[in-house]
Amino acid sequence: MEGMRCSPACSAVVTHRRRSLGDDFFSRRGRLRQMKVSASANANSVADSTKLVTFLGKGGSGRSTAAALAAQYYASEGLRTCLVVHSQDPTPNFLMGCEIGTSPVTCNKNLVAVRLETTKLLLEPLNQVKKADTRVNLSQGVLEGVVGEELGVLPGMDSIFSALEIEKLTNSLGRKRKDPGQTYDVVVYDGTSTEETLRMIGAAERARWYLKHIRNMAEKTDIGRLTAPSVLKLITESMGSSGVSIDGKTSTEIWDNIEQNLQKASAFFTDPSRFRSFLVVDPRSQLSISSGLRYWGCAIQAGARISGVFGFSSGAKVPEQFSPLAFAVLPYSFGESTVEWDKMVSALSDEAKSILDWSQFGSAQPLVRFDGSKRTVTLFMPGFDKSQIKLFQYRGGTELLVEAGDQRRVIQLPSGLQGKVAGAKFENASLVVTLR
Amino acid sequence: MEGMRCSPACSAVVTHRRRSLGDDFFSRRGRLRQMKVSASANANSVADSTKLVTFLGKGGSGRSTAAALAAQYYASEGLRTCLVVHSQDPTPNFLMGCEIGTSPVTCNKNLVAVRLETTKLLLEPLNQVKKADTRVNLSQGVLEGVVGEELGVLPGMDSIFSALEIEKLTNSLGRKRKDPGQTYDVVVYDGTSTEETLRMIGAAERARWYLKHIRNMAEKTDIGRLTAPSVLKLITESMGSSGVSIDGKTSTEIWDNIEQNLQKASAFFTDPSRFRSFLVVDPRSQLSISSGLRYWGCAIQAGARISGVFGFSSGAKVPEQFSPLAFAVLPYSFGESTVEWDKMVSALSDEAKSILDWSQFGSAQPLVRFDGSKRTVTLFMPGFDKSQIKLFQYRGGTELLVEAGDQRRVIQLPSGLQGKVAGAKFENASLVVTLR
Repeated sequence: MEGMRCSPACSAVVTHRRRSLGDDFFSRRGRLRQMKVSASANANSVADSTKLVTFLGKGGSGRSTAAALAAQYYASEGLRTCLVVHSQDPTPNFLMGCEIGTSPVTCNKNLVAVRLETTKLLLEPLNQVKKADTRVNLSQGVLEGVVGEELGVLPGMDSIFSALEIEKLTNSLGRKRKDPGQTYDVVVYDGTSTEETLRMIGAAERARWYLKHIRNMAEKTDIGRLTAPSVLKLITESMGSSGVSIDGKTSTEIWDNIEQNLQKASAFFTDPSRFRSFLVVDPRSQLSISSGLRYWGCAIQAGARISGVFGFSSGAKVPEQFSPLAFAVLPYSFGESTVEWDKMVSALSDEAKSILDWSQFGSAQPLVRFDGSKRTVTLFMPGFDKSQIKLFQYRGGTELLVEAGDQRRVIQLPSGLQGKVAGAKFENASLVVTLR
Repeated sequence: MEGMRCSPACSAVVTHRRRSLGDDFFSRRGRLRQMKVSASANANSVADSTKLVTFLGKGGSGRSTAAALAAQYYASEGLRTCLVVHSQDPTPNFLMGCEIGTSPVTCNKNLVAVRLETTKLLLEPLNQVKKADTRVNLSQGVLEGVVGEELGVLPGMDSIFSALEIEKLTNSLGRKRKDPGQTYDVVVYDGTSTEETLRMIGAAERARWYLKHIRNMAEKTDIGRLTAPSVLKLITESMGSSGVSIDGKTSTEIWDNIEQNLQKASAFFTDPSRFRSFLVVDPRSQLSISSGLRYWGCAIQAGARISGVFGFSSGAKVPEQFSPLAFAVLPYSFGESTVEWDKMVSALSDEAKSILDWSQFGSAQPLVRFDGSKRTVTLFMPGFDKSQIKLFQYRGGTELLVEAGDQRRVIQLPSGLQGKVAGAKFENASLVVTLR
């Protein structure tokens, strides 16, 4: 298959290979400052403790601005910071004062920004699969004929490939990095929509269920036994190109390994020392507050805690519905020209810094409380009323399946509290479920 | 596998089967008015001419408000209208003055609204596959053990299942409807983000490329020849539960059939008599205008025309960068209480109505112009500069692959104009490519 780049006269130059997102403009022994409060007790190397920060809220509430400001703040504190944007909206270019492309661009001291584009992100995984295929020879040459640069992007690919890229940037699976020097202290992710970011947060936990069924298909059906070994070999060969040999691995080990990786990814998003998400609302607008509350509940359903709420209206007070979350007003002082980040960052209030600094652990209120004596399970579910929550039980009372906000969440019941649901009531933004 | 609904004391009632989205509150012989200008010459039945309308723009620009207003307007004109929202944001409930759930709710005369939730949308397709599997017996009982109500939503599922639902609502594939009475004249889709809506618009065209490769895998490899026939049988049995027998069909016919359906879906989005998309911008904000321009270009890259631009700032003029698109200001006059739609709809300007009415075909400017004498291809690409556009050629000069806005678009060159790219320049928001 012939691939022709355009002539030099052509308007655009093709970059076939993306540069690695870990740029080398940071000195490894540079001005790294540890986070003021690091909750990650076993973070014995920087490579293992890259933190991920994201902002949730209704479109137009200021998510991108808050993300840009947070990135500037972390960088000003000496942390190696990467702002990841994932939308075709050119606004982040204006905010950061530089053209953000698919290769990281330096926007300020300690700060790079990069735009995820799925058309580019799919090239490297495809090449890995193609390379593995030449060894495994599963596709008998068909894959070889697929030109990555010709492939379009289907719905869903954006989420999948950006999740893989975020994993690489944060090393959430704790894999051995190709170059441990190319790491960030903080990655700030500005996704295309709150809905999509929440799906990404909840993906690994949900994928474990699908894995279970797929494994069943592979092990218990004729078609599975016939095809799974070679497909598994292709998958592991593709992933193992970093040097890990899988020759000796049995199918069982491979399945177990995939399961363990999903567990790690899932644990990453529930670890407040690694992952933080914040809400952005307009405190003057009841609609914005309602949306924020709903997204708070949706985040909990997805498996993430919210660590604080930001708003851009000066003089605004914390909307009481968000109690006990910490709230801070962010400075907003730019017009149609460039943004003066030094001024903006120095105008950050102590509250805002304290929320961003990981020193504040958000609500100490547990999201699920079990009471053995009353035989109740109390689920904190802000933003919902009881008619919007559905409960199911499928496994003889060992667990509770909570459906709300277009998400399903499984709650394992402690052994002393297992049983069928006797009733449920809603009070103080919590669903109190009584078990028989 | 045991499934227990909660007891009546439980806060929430489970609806296992979703009602069909085509509600029967409309009389079949009701007050249907034909669109003022119907470009669909062969639209001999209402069932074959449901129109789809969507709004694109940066978050916060007023997409949801414009969608609600358009839906109210179409309904006021006597058209059976369905507003489809796809986000957990409760704002559309406030806008429409009613609780929008996963079953259609009547919001006004001729107007229903429905919220897509993927947790519900995946149940029916899963049941169809399970039913087909009991006949085909591919999974040997494994699928039977999958409880749909336990499945979580993975990234990408939102787009895929909502695309299937939009197909059902608009009948874009022209399939025989189960009940031809349950149809709408207009479906207004308010997606979660412009990026996701654009992926949906471009999906069918892109999927054809993947289909080609998958078919190659199925026909030319050992593993494909071994597995494809039974998988194809499962797929067609699942889709054929509407009564179409596929017993006599060969694999070739099935593959061709899938390809034809993708072609139909793709043609739907390029047919201005069936599908329309509009931009929403804030004409006072340069950032909003820049975003709007970029999304205009992205829409063209995805395969859709933009049919007009709306803004909510009274007194605003059409930003000249959007020329030659028609522009209209929409009335915006609600605070924190309910919206008075009768007032809002009667405040619609003639320009706004004319854009919404399908009487205006947007820019007559062709998106791609071929000039045989000059040997040029002129691609209208608003919102981009030349450094953001990449050109590739892979098939010996028979086509041009344009990469911009994180999308790839293939342009077939007419036989007299085939050749390799000699040069390209950018002028008047267009890329002019000269061929050898």
